Amino acid sequence: MKKLLNENAHNMFMRKAIILAAKGKGNVSPNPMVGCIIVKKNKIIGAGYHKIFGGPHAEIEALKDCASPSGSDMYVNLEPCCHYNKKTVPCVPEIIKAGIKRIFVAMKDPNPNVNGRGLSQLRRSGIRCYVGHLRNEAEKLNETYIKYVTTNVPFVTLKTAYSFDLKTHAYTGDSRWISSVDSREYVHKMRTDSDGVLVGIKTVLCDDPALTSHGAGKNPVRIVLDTHLRIPLSAKILDDKSKTVVATSFISDHKKKRVLENMGIIILELPLKNKKLDLKRLLSKLAGLNISSILVEGGEEVTKSFMEEKLFDRRVIFICPLIIGRAKKIKDSAAIKQISVIDSGRDIMLQGDIDV
Amino acid sequence: MKKLLNENAHNMFMRKAIILAAKGKGNVSPNPMVGCIIVKKNKIIGAGYHKIFGGPHAEIEALKDCASPSGSDMYVNLEPCCHYNKKTVPCVPEIIKAGIKRIFVAMKDPNPNVNGRGLSQLRRSGIRCYVGHLRNEAEKLNETYIKYVTTNVPFVTLKTAYSFDLKTHAYTGDSRWISSVDSREYVHKMRTDSDGVLVGIKTVLCDDPALTSHGAGKNPVRIVLDTHLRIPLSAKILDDKSKTVVATSFISDHKKKRVLENMGIIILELPLKNKKLDLKRLLSKLAGLNISSILVEGGEEVTKSFMEEKLFDRRVIFICPLIIGRAKKIKDSAAIKQISVIDSGRDIMLQGDIDV
Repeated sequence: MKKLLNENAHNMFMRKAIILAAKGKGNVSPNPMVGCIIVKKNKIIGAGYHKIFGGPHAEIEALKDCASPSGSDMYVNLEPCCHYNKKTVPCVPEIIKAGIKRIFVAMKDPNPNVNGRGLSQLRRSGIRCYVGHLRNEAEKLNETYIKYVTTNVPFVTLKTAYSFDLKTHAYTGDSRWISSVDSREYVHKMRTDSDGVLVGIKTVLCDDPALTSHGAGKNPVRIVLDTHLRIPLSAKILDDKSKTVVATSFISDHKKKRVLENMGIIILELPLKNKKLDLKRLLSKLAGLNISSILVEGGEEVTKSFMEEKLFDRRVIFICPLIIGRAKKIKDSAAIKQISVIDSGRDIMLQGDIDV
Repeated sequence: MKKLLNENAHNMFMRKAIILAAKGKGNVSPNPMVGCIIVKKNKIIGAGYHKIFGGPHAEIEALKDCASPSGSDMYVNLEPCCHYNKKTVPCVPEIIKAGIKRIFVAMKDPNPNVNGRGLSQLRRSGIRCYVGHLRNEAEKLNETYIKYVTTNVPFVTLKTAYSFDLKTHAYTGDSRWISSVDSREYVHKMRTDSDGVLVGIKTVLCDDPALTSHGAGKNPVRIVLDTHLRIPLSAKILDDKSKTVVATSFISDHKKKRVLENMGIIILELPLKNKKLDLKRLLSKLAGLNISSILVEGGEEVTKSFMEEKLFDRRVIFICPLIIGRAKKIKDSAAIKQISVIDSGRDIMLQGDIDV
């Protein structure tokens, strides 16, 4: 019974560390989100989290936060770092120096530079290490980081909004707006949580989107696939609200490339594969630019390419209660009412009635 | 307070009538489902429902079920009939004869042959009539009947199963099975609840489906759209498990039409509209065959036509956790795991991760 109570207490402190860690969302990438709690005699005496890329790590923040950490327990959602291959000093020596007695780590750091070495150093110094409390939650929190450091490819989310007749636009090209205000706001949140947001040139030519987070948080890097470099210099995504990457072929207009580069745009030259830009190469080049996650927002062709090559981690589909049919404008669509969503074995069943 | 209790009691008896009515599902069409409860001094003394098309109506069944209905209350989910334009004698005279004192009717019968006339006759005979207890539930129960008698067009449900990359088949044509066993069983139930089930000739040529309810209940009439009369005489839907309707153009092979008719198949000749069979004409011809509801099961082109002409009442979409991509066979698809479904304003958001 005593053991059970202890386990609950460990999980409780680890949960606090994870909740703290999550505060760094959108600001620490491509670093992981990390939170840290320091506990003495069952009381929290210090807490901290990694606030911003390049800033102090969670462990250092937590140690600074308490008067005398010596002899206390530390809870941290990720194995402390031990390498010098980064902006700040490693945490392990600081933890040892502070006299921490026991450390609870939700998960090992899958970064090849750490991956158990932090724990080894801590153990060698006599600190008792426990790994695995709330491991699933910790892995979920840092899923994009895990993908990025283990594969050197960004975590890719494909997002598309469809009408109830599964169209992404009217036959005229009009697509504003298929999804509801709430969904669009959610997408702005998804953008600020992503390092990059990616569209095809057709979307730029049709919709001229700004691809910002519309005030929901930091703006992502905007990435456009533009094989033939058709992007107009007046395109909104070339504005100064965030960085922009134009991925194009080696053979497209070199003069225009120089003009874009002078505007501060990053040009990525990619080989072609079946007449399309090589997406695998694109992803590894983006990883090289510290982009650990991208949100692919279409259009249809781009999404299809990522899907057919299985170059994605997550698929997000909005199904919106409209029947576009042959309407010229989205606003002239028929409405779908009385939507219900039912679990059907492993499938999801959606049902709705046309509003005539 | 007394009034409130009474209202609750009326709703309770009406709910029992509706539950009884629903027992007729799949067997009474194109008649409505009707249930009837007879109550004296707050006790149910008789109950009945319309069991089968051509059989006695609910009111008659309920009156037969009680010894002395005189002076009692009747609860019925649809206005009793008063016309002779059908298989059985009208109910209104029988209700009057039985000495019912009050009648509670959930909704007027929208059938132009009734539509308030039953209630008028009852009122004229001195029976107190109350309309509207659980009207919404009653309308929901008989939604296909309401559509059919008010428009003379069947209630049309479009059903499609999609993978998570929104494909209905692999590029090879393989489509078995995108949806789960549970979903397929649910579709068998949908079939038995429909008077007819409709597919395009391509589906017959590709999949040769039987389109039966696979034992879930009565088999629906099978309907195939076959402009050029390409159906093989060995097609499963031409078997004797249920009636089959082949809708074709006036100009397709007359000799083959005769052969099919000799096999017991109903041939519907339809004009063309934009090189396709005129679906509006089809629906009114099907209504003429007493088909009050149809389930359209594809393929893609057929569903698209119904959708673009807005000739449907309900859209049912199964989203299945597979990414077909370029797989030749459905069974070689990638899996999608950790599906979540989230309400996003008026939209539905589906999210899933690729299982690598």
